[in-house]
Amino acid sequence: MSSLAIAVFDSGLGGLTVLKVLRDHFPGENFVYLGDTARLPYGSKSPETIHKYAKRNIDFLLKTKIKAVVVACNSASAALRSHPVAAPVPVFEVIQPGAEAALAATKTGQIGVVGTFATVSQGAYAKCITSLSAEVTVHSQACPLLVPLVEEGWIDDPLTNLVVNRYVGPLLNKGIDTLILGCTHYPILKKNFRKVTGPDIQLIDSGEAIAHKLQRAIAHGSVAPNTGGRGSFQILTTDKTARFAEIAAYLLGEQNIPTVEVVDV
Amino acid sequence: MSSLAIAVFDSGLGGLTVLKVLRDHFPGENFVYLGDTARLPYGSKSPETIHKYAKRNIDFLLKTKIKAVVVACNSASAALRSHPVAAPVPVFEVIQPGAEAALAATKTGQIGVVGTFATVSQGAYAKCITSLSAEVTVHSQACPLLVPLVEEGWIDDPLTNLVVNRYVGPLLNKGIDTLILGCTHYPILKKNFRKVTGPDIQLIDSGEAIAHKLQRAIAHGSVAPNTGGRGSFQILTTDKTARFAEIAAYLLGEQNIPTVEVVDV
Repeated sequence: MSSLAIAVFDSGLGGLTVLKVLRDHFPGENFVYLGDTARLPYGSKSPETIHKYAKRNIDFLLKTKIKAVVVACNSASAALRSHPVAAPVPVFEVIQPGAEAALAATKTGQIGVVGTFATVSQGAYAKCITSLSAEVTVHSQACPLLVPLVEEGWIDDPLTNLVVNRYVGPLLNKGIDTLILGCTHYPILKKNFRKVTGPDIQLIDSGEAIAHKLQRAIAHGSVAPNTGGRGSFQILTTDKTARFAEIAAYLLGEQNIPTVEVVDV
Repeated sequence: MSSLAIAVFDSGLGGLTVLKVLRDHFPGENFVYLGDTARLPYGSKSPETIHKYAKRNIDFLLKTKIKAVVVACNSASAALRSHPVAAPVPVFEVIQPGAEAALAATKTGQIGVVGTFATVSQGAYAKCITSLSAEVTVHSQACPLLVPLVEEGWIDDPLTNLVVNRYVGPLLNKGIDTLILGCTHYPILKKNFRKVTGPDIQLIDSGEAIAHKLQRAIAHGSVAPNTGGRGSFQILTTDKTARFAEIAAYLLGEQNIPTVEVVDV
């Protein structure tokens, strides 16, 4: 067993949806979360720049005592899949688990993907899914407005439903039966997506998918579990961001979260 | 006279609306434009981080041959007003010219300001306007979704009108007769603002206001003019951004723009 922390990073707040799922699945583990808020968002930037930021985050996290890194950002995962970085601990990205979950869910073989501009333009999910199965078709749609809508807090909002509908409508017209929410912010809009898709479309959530991956890694021994009681977590950001702690508490579903610490990455 | 360039910088594309106005007013001048696309947007970040980025841009631009710096970003201008940086050439920011133009325009003394979260939360316009006149009231509204809507290209779009209406409606209810478009992206949405405000509200555009300021600086001799024929311009960005050249050409109203050069700032 190992009490070392599992590091989770994202460009900002979105990855906290992944942290929440991981804490629910692994209540005994210690986590350290890094939100690169000084450089967010990643999704509108070039693969080279995203890769540079992701590598910097990983290097920073490796200097703390950790046993694994979870890249809880689809844009960063896409950039790292193209150019993996060497690390002395396992690095988990969100694309492959999401792709596998979508393949397990689809019956018609028509899979939709929504994500940031960076994730979609790199074709990360499409490449991964078609490498696993030649019998499916992937329809992708970049949704640059969804992250700002979440950050603005317009969640239970008809205007957000209109925006989701404009992005998802064309995918529905293509006959998808499964939709990958390919950005860690999107699970926060699950109800909006559900309103637009109706009940019959399977929605794939990166957080759940990566939790299963981590579960298998622990079962296979590549990540040592912590069985020593209740785990803790720590939140780091690269910029002092107004309302970060408040929104973090909301996303994690916890009233008392540790003080958010600003670090220079 | 001086053929040295006037440097203009912004976090991204928005400042090109200022560059366009400056080129229209000063066709003989040479310009160098820097868009800090690797770190955009500034408007959601902390004053300290925005200041750090702005200072880095100014230091970079000072290493090229320039005779003035125009800070064509309201968030950066707000941060620099609180903590000015020393520079061997005049540095022009957008807040003061916009504030002066609004004061000259208002009859009721009720002035509205729309801007990014950073500009509004620093109270940059409110502080500047009330320091110039005690007889006006400033009503501010942060509009975090407008920049992403412009970047998404949803400009002539009823959905964007809905968003503008949600932000501006409460300001209209307060009886404003003048509205400062306190972000360089917003002039691109002038028609949307006009649709929401009706014809009787004065819309103040930062680009126009700063051009008048520069005109006075040239008249007073603090910036030497270039009278040697047709001026040129150069565009630099800190990230290779898809569609930047295309949108730049649109914003500048010119078909042939110079190749966008990526620099490490």
